[in-house]
Amino acid sequence: MAEQTVRTKNVGLRGITVADTKISYIDGERGVLIYRGYRIEDLALRSTFPETAYLLLHEFLPSPEELQAFEAKLREFRALPGFVIEAMKAWPRGAHPMDALQASIPLLAMDDPDLGDESREANVTMALRLIARLPAVVGAWHRIRQGLDVLPPDDALSHAGNFLWQVLGKKPDEETARIMDVCLILHADHTFNASTFACREVVSTRAHMYAGVAAGVGALSGELHGGANARVMEMLQKIDRDGVTDIAAWVRDRLDRKERIMGMGHAVYKTLDPRARILKELAFQLGEKTGQTKWPEMTAAIEEAAMAELEKRGKKGIQPNVDFYSASVYHILGFPGDLMTCIFAVSRIAGWCAHIIEEKFAEAQGKPALYRPKAEYVGDYCGRMDCEYVPPEKRGRD
Amino acid sequence: MAEQTVRTKNVGLRGITVADTKISYIDGERGVLIYRGYRIEDLALRSTFPETAYLLLHEFLPSPEELQAFEAKLREFRALPGFVIEAMKAWPRGAHPMDALQASIPLLAMDDPDLGDESREANVTMALRLIARLPAVVGAWHRIRQGLDVLPPDDALSHAGNFLWQVLGKKPDEETARIMDVCLILHADHTFNASTFACREVVSTRAHMYAGVAAGVGALSGELHGGANARVMEMLQKIDRDGVTDIAAWVRDRLDRKERIMGMGHAVYKTLDPRARILKELAFQLGEKTGQTKWPEMTAAIEEAAMAELEKRGKKGIQPNVDFYSASVYHILGFPGDLMTCIFAVSRIAGWCAHIIEEKFAEAQGKPALYRPKAEYVGDYCGRMDCEYVPPEKRGRD
Repeated sequence: MAEQTVRTKNVGLRGITVADTKISYIDGERGVLIYRGYRIEDLALRSTFPETAYLLLHEFLPSPEELQAFEAKLREFRALPGFVIEAMKAWPRGAHPMDALQASIPLLAMDDPDLGDESREANVTMALRLIARLPAVVGAWHRIRQGLDVLPPDDALSHAGNFLWQVLGKKPDEETARIMDVCLILHADHTFNASTFACREVVSTRAHMYAGVAAGVGALSGELHGGANARVMEMLQKIDRDGVTDIAAWVRDRLDRKERIMGMGHAVYKTLDPRARILKELAFQLGEKTGQTKWPEMTAAIEEAAMAELEKRGKKGIQPNVDFYSASVYHILGFPGDLMTCIFAVSRIAGWCAHIIEEKFAEAQGKPALYRPKAEYVGDYCGRMDCEYVPPEKRGRD
Repeated sequence: MAEQTVRTKNVGLRGITVADTKISYIDGERGVLIYRGYRIEDLALRSTFPETAYLLLHEFLPSPEELQAFEAKLREFRALPGFVIEAMKAWPRGAHPMDALQASIPLLAMDDPDLGDESREANVTMALRLIARLPAVVGAWHRIRQGLDVLPPDDALSHAGNFLWQVLGKKPDEETARIMDVCLILHADHTFNASTFACREVVSTRAHMYAGVAAGVGALSGELHGGANARVMEMLQKIDRDGVTDIAAWVRDRLDRKERIMGMGHAVYKTLDPRARILKELAFQLGEKTGQTKWPEMTAAIEEAAMAELEKRGKKGIQPNVDFYSASVYHILGFPGDLMTCIFAVSRIAGWCAHIIEEKFAEAQGKPALYRPKAEYVGDYCGRMDCEYVPPEKRGRD
């Protein structure tokens, strides 16, 4: 595509194709998500998060030996530098975990021996360190803010299982660890979403990977992006607290007041988000396992009522998104609401790093060096383009 | 403009108008830069950095009382929270100041009592805290990494003068402080450059101001953006070390080897960057004052030789940019090379915050909620869109 005739102003870049990518593909009409050639359903069923991370970084699925080596590296890199934990101990206990996470990324940069080496190989190694360490960072801050000791990683556990252990302080059984693992697979990439684009935008200046990832964490924290899963859980807990029994009436009332149903609707999918279907199954599986079906049942009731009500109002295609059932899953796993967006980051770090590497090495294909859009100046301060500078004592305003 | 027919892919958004802005205006053909109606030349000559920051945040120049109140707030907010300094003491001394700065932004968020209040007023107050504290952050890290005590702010000094004091540990005379002040005015805004766009992109998800600023710091650190001034200084120091006497030959040789002259050329200006003209004067003024004309003279010699040589080679319009003479100014002021990009941030924070506020409150004008461009999927992994997932033990590659 050489040229595109599109509305470009005030559309948030919606529909504007800014680059090529080989990392992932979404067909929003058919509800298809593909990572480097593989359907998300296949990966969720048959892959693991480390294997999926390998796929995203390397463009192909690993051999058994390659996967073993990759997982060994993840374990090796897991331990946090002592100074990160020391620094965290000075932070105010009330700090939001996403602020703590964002602050930690440049600290991890300070410890990375490959920082400054801009070869592809060094970038892949930095990515591995980030993927390995983000779970430990989230765990460390959650423990420290509660006045608890930071837990050491457990090499007997999978990446996902160890994440649960380091954050929640309880060693999960295999089924629980696998549910966490599938959640991490599902959130690992999603083409040029706002956080991934922020990562790419920052490194397009030739900033290092960590500088880009810190931007991604910042974008993810917004409630229109990764912050949405926490908002879904707040909504569910309020319904529970208020003792709402007629979910359909609650939905109608909310829609009458022009309020959004959190977790419903997506900018890209016009049909069911394929990740939502899998997360719904996981939420029920985990609910039954733990005797907490209340949350997925409440979510399913909202889904049913909202779909019917939206259809009646002529709004088709507003369906559950990835945050709708993940909130229940994370809640039943034991995560407090303010950690939910951090879980997203622990997964999405794989996609961010893959995109950063693609962005850094796409320059060779003639891509211009940095993202710098135009803005239309609509300032009108004195009826002319340039106003006369008046000294302070002579200034008057109407 | 309803629609635009443009090449959108792999052009780094160049020429694509993504939003309205009332903050600043560049005419790259005529070399004009305007902040909210005022020419950069007038502001550099007659305004101060606090007044310019007020203008960027509030859309108009302050009355004497408003300016006084604004400056009082800047002084009040200047002191850093103790935990930021404590945390810094745990960091590795070799950490790059831009990584230290990026890590500090979320830490400042943790201390801001207005965090979570998304009114315009609260955002302006958060902006004031950031503008007040960035000089202190840069100073604190520079002192701590040298094993020195952090210096308390001096309320008798101007914003720029206090910045010099807190970083370099020497109270500047008025002329020197004013030169620093003018540098801060010149770098305070520049429409939708890569770091400002990163700030806007991040907060378009409704992330808070600090999350956006941390992204801006990340983008600024890249050598194609704010990192360029440090690269100019490296170039000058190498010329000095190598004892180059024939600058014209050095320029020819560099151009023959297809290497860039750092600090020459700009994506937007096709004529002399108006900031470069003023910085050239400041560099000579400061050089004469301190007996260090060597640096601006060397820079001017490179400028002259490069302009002549580029003209000869049919390349017109490649002229000094803002980084070309600022490197000499900062070097003579006493800043080490790796702090130069931090100085840029200490100034640009005013523009970043103004843009963040504009982005946050532009939603009311029907702007969609977040920047999410499209990418074209060009992955080709098995000759089909979706490949068959093969278990690890059965994988073979050609």
